[in-house]
Amino acid sequence: MTQKPIVIVGAGLVGSLLAILLGKRGYTVKVFERRPDMRKTRQYAGKSINLALSDRGIRGLRLAGVLSDVMKIAIPVYGRSIHQIDGNVVFQPYSADGKCNYSVSRAEINFTLMDLAEQLPTVSFHFNEKCVDVDFTNTTVSFENTETKKITSESAEVVFGADGAFSAVRLNMMLKNDRYQYQQFYIETGYKELIIPPDTNGNFRLNNYESLHIWPRKEFMLMALPNPTGDFTCTLFMPFEGKNSFEQLKTKEQVKQFFETYFADAVPLMPTYLDDFFKNPTSSLVTVRCYPWVIGKVALIGDAAHAITPFYGQGMNAGFEDTVILMELLEKYNGDWSNTLQEYQVLRKKDGDAIAQLALDNFVEMRDKTANPQFILQKKIEQWFYKLHPDKWIPLYDMVTYRPDIRYSEALQRGYYQDQIMQEVLHLPDIEKNWAIPMVEEFILKRLEIKPFQYN
Amino acid sequence: MTQKPIVIVGAGLVGSLLAILLGKRGYTVKVFERRPDMRKTRQYAGKSINLALSDRGIRGLRLAGVLSDVMKIAIPVYGRSIHQIDGNVVFQPYSADGKCNYSVSRAEINFTLMDLAEQLPTVSFHFNEKCVDVDFTNTTVSFENTETKKITSESAEVVFGADGAFSAVRLNMMLKNDRYQYQQFYIETGYKELIIPPDTNGNFRLNNYESLHIWPRKEFMLMALPNPTGDFTCTLFMPFEGKNSFEQLKTKEQVKQFFETYFADAVPLMPTYLDDFFKNPTSSLVTVRCYPWVIGKVALIGDAAHAITPFYGQGMNAGFEDTVILMELLEKYNGDWSNTLQEYQVLRKKDGDAIAQLALDNFVEMRDKTANPQFILQKKIEQWFYKLHPDKWIPLYDMVTYRPDIRYSEALQRGYYQDQIMQEVLHLPDIEKNWAIPMVEEFILKRLEIKPFQYN
Repeated sequence: MTQKPIVIVGAGLVGSLLAILLGKRGYTVKVFERRPDMRKTRQYAGKSINLALSDRGIRGLRLAGVLSDVMKIAIPVYGRSIHQIDGNVVFQPYSADGKCNYSVSRAEINFTLMDLAEQLPTVSFHFNEKCVDVDFTNTTVSFENTETKKITSESAEVVFGADGAFSAVRLNMMLKNDRYQYQQFYIETGYKELIIPPDTNGNFRLNNYESLHIWPRKEFMLMALPNPTGDFTCTLFMPFEGKNSFEQLKTKEQVKQFFETYFADAVPLMPTYLDDFFKNPTSSLVTVRCYPWVIGKVALIGDAAHAITPFYGQGMNAGFEDTVILMELLEKYNGDWSNTLQEYQVLRKKDGDAIAQLALDNFVEMRDKTANPQFILQKKIEQWFYKLHPDKWIPLYDMVTYRPDIRYSEALQRGYYQDQIMQEVLHLPDIEKNWAIPMVEEFILKRLEIKPFQYN
Repeated sequence: MTQKPIVIVGAGLVGSLLAILLGKRGYTVKVFERRPDMRKTRQYAGKSINLALSDRGIRGLRLAGVLSDVMKIAIPVYGRSIHQIDGNVVFQPYSADGKCNYSVSRAEINFTLMDLAEQLPTVSFHFNEKCVDVDFTNTTVSFENTETKKITSESAEVVFGADGAFSAVRLNMMLKNDRYQYQQFYIETGYKELIIPPDTNGNFRLNNYESLHIWPRKEFMLMALPNPTGDFTCTLFMPFEGKNSFEQLKTKEQVKQFFETYFADAVPLMPTYLDDFFKNPTSSLVTVRCYPWVIGKVALIGDAAHAITPFYGQGMNAGFEDTVILMELLEKYNGDWSNTLQEYQVLRKKDGDAIAQLALDNFVEMRDKTANPQFILQKKIEQWFYKLHPDKWIPLYDMVTYRPDIRYSEALQRGYYQDQIMQEVLHLPDIEKNWAIPMVEEFILKRLEIKPFQYN
């Protein structure tokens, strides 16, 4: 059997995981990466946001048999530690029953997955190979070696564009095919990586380190996620222009005053923030919506298909879930790629759109609502009701993060409906004082009867 | 003075008009066109939709001093001739006071504008020059000659991307600049050019030829616009897929049956439609929204900035209006390009978005509502009220088509508000029988008091 290889464009998180999944199933997999081998350069250019690995992503890692390897570099995160402007810190658990996400560094998980993929005899990596052309009729991809400038052409059984938010495979789809639906949308907010290093003993400098620390300040926020090395990767999210924006912070003095005003309790923990602020780039946040994802036997996967903002911590998880669905369909269709890819795109497009929307919605929640007493009350009531009727109500965050059996698109729909009900509940008389009472329970049950959901 | 030239990419309608306007103001203008000189090849590849020139476009032609030249190739169109499925034809005038649009062939008006531009000593055209690179820092554009493959670089004072819906200048903006907002959106409907030739005496084969003939059939429609040569350019708009779609019409027999069922009165007038249907391509309809339109001294104009669907007959008019606004601002800022371009993009982006939306809305109106008695009644009441209170109410079609003093964005907003009021009016008791009565007038006046508009 001289089967052509599966070509994966992009050795990022999704490309590397997909290589493992396909390689273990006996497919010959060639992964082509535009950049040099990141494991040697160990450079992520100060643009990293720590990732929150959760159940959808875990499912992919488990399916690939690499979960335990990744868990070695992961730190559990049980909720949000909200740093109020007066210095008070309030902990908001993610779930009513102690479920957690895992903080992982993008670089570390990527290196781990690449190492594991490369150990398979069926998988090979090819670096410094920039995708310059895709032939959708013959399923071939051309690469230019960024060092030798030599152009090679790879004929493939199937091509996966796992080449991220600025996918070259997708650009070829767009430029070479009529009626290609495409949108790239940037929010007004950018981000900058900063750091809270370990203390002199190598320990975490923030209490309750197993949480996502947030300094929500409405139009902007600082957040911090722990690393196994005792440091926190911090991310400042802020508008590019206008009041309190990156544009306004041009001198060290301005940055200092800004941080001391809004993040006073963080300043002593960040000895290098003034230098880092000017050294690290200000990056933008794009949402990409496109269709189709599949043309001929060329398919987009992960960010290439559905780049989203990071505010639900689902970018990597959504991409890993793509690979799970793909493997399930490949099994369902007995290895028939044509059917597999067609059903894959129909199923996943809907979910990609949904998580993109949820992520945009969650930005408002994180930077603004987490500091809002009404919102905190809403979360409490939801968790209370969820414990009473787990068959009738699941908080949106739980559905998105901990329930891979519920599709993103379903979670979005149910979440909106539940939120409507909660807005009514919050208007009940004296709700602030008395909420864990039969009257509120009855009210919610009655509302749910109007449009009851059967949860899986 | 060794001023660098103004470079215009694209010798289409807007590029050619802009060349005249700038050339007459003494600027050295170089127009680069990817295709060969269309005046020699005289090929438009069966993809033409006749254009409806109206007041916004006329304003541009008048400003350039070329209106009388264009009027020689134009035919006035006073309204819609609706061909009902039973063969009845109903005329709906565009306006209450005899205003009209002008049907012009895209090729003819383009040739005329190119000829007029080329007569100016300041303007030169360069054909077979494909834009392959834009340098936004140095305001230079590189072109590859499609015949010699030679690459030349043009350093410019200002560059205009007038290169249409699939603009190469815009693609360079998108690929080379962070945070470029971009959307290309295709509707499910495509179109195909057909023809009603003149009769043996060279006369029009349809009565009331000074109108836009429409065969509205809900999901699809045929339309026909007159040419000075006695023929009508016909366009069939129809979904690509599904029931009654291009996909479904695969044999001559199927096309014949389809036309005889839905366009029975047109069939005898279209002797070549069966051949043309398979000879002419099926084209798609894109809406492009992007921002910014200006980076450095490179600016998008016309379809390159705001490609829209053809259903309001405003694509060319919107592009010509861009050039008018640009000239007004250039005067306002005494030839300062930087200020001119900045205000241009802020002003026109809003209007580009508005006309894109209006065009999409009007598709539903044309293919569906024009055959609806409620809609016809609404139009009558609106025109009646407009005659009574022209200071308080202007029908949306009039605002968009005949009132360049009202911005598209303003027309959209007022149009939506007026439509809300009309929906209420249509629910008044016995409105079908008695509508030209004081009670209805009072009702509308009262509603308008809630949010009265001051028209210019």
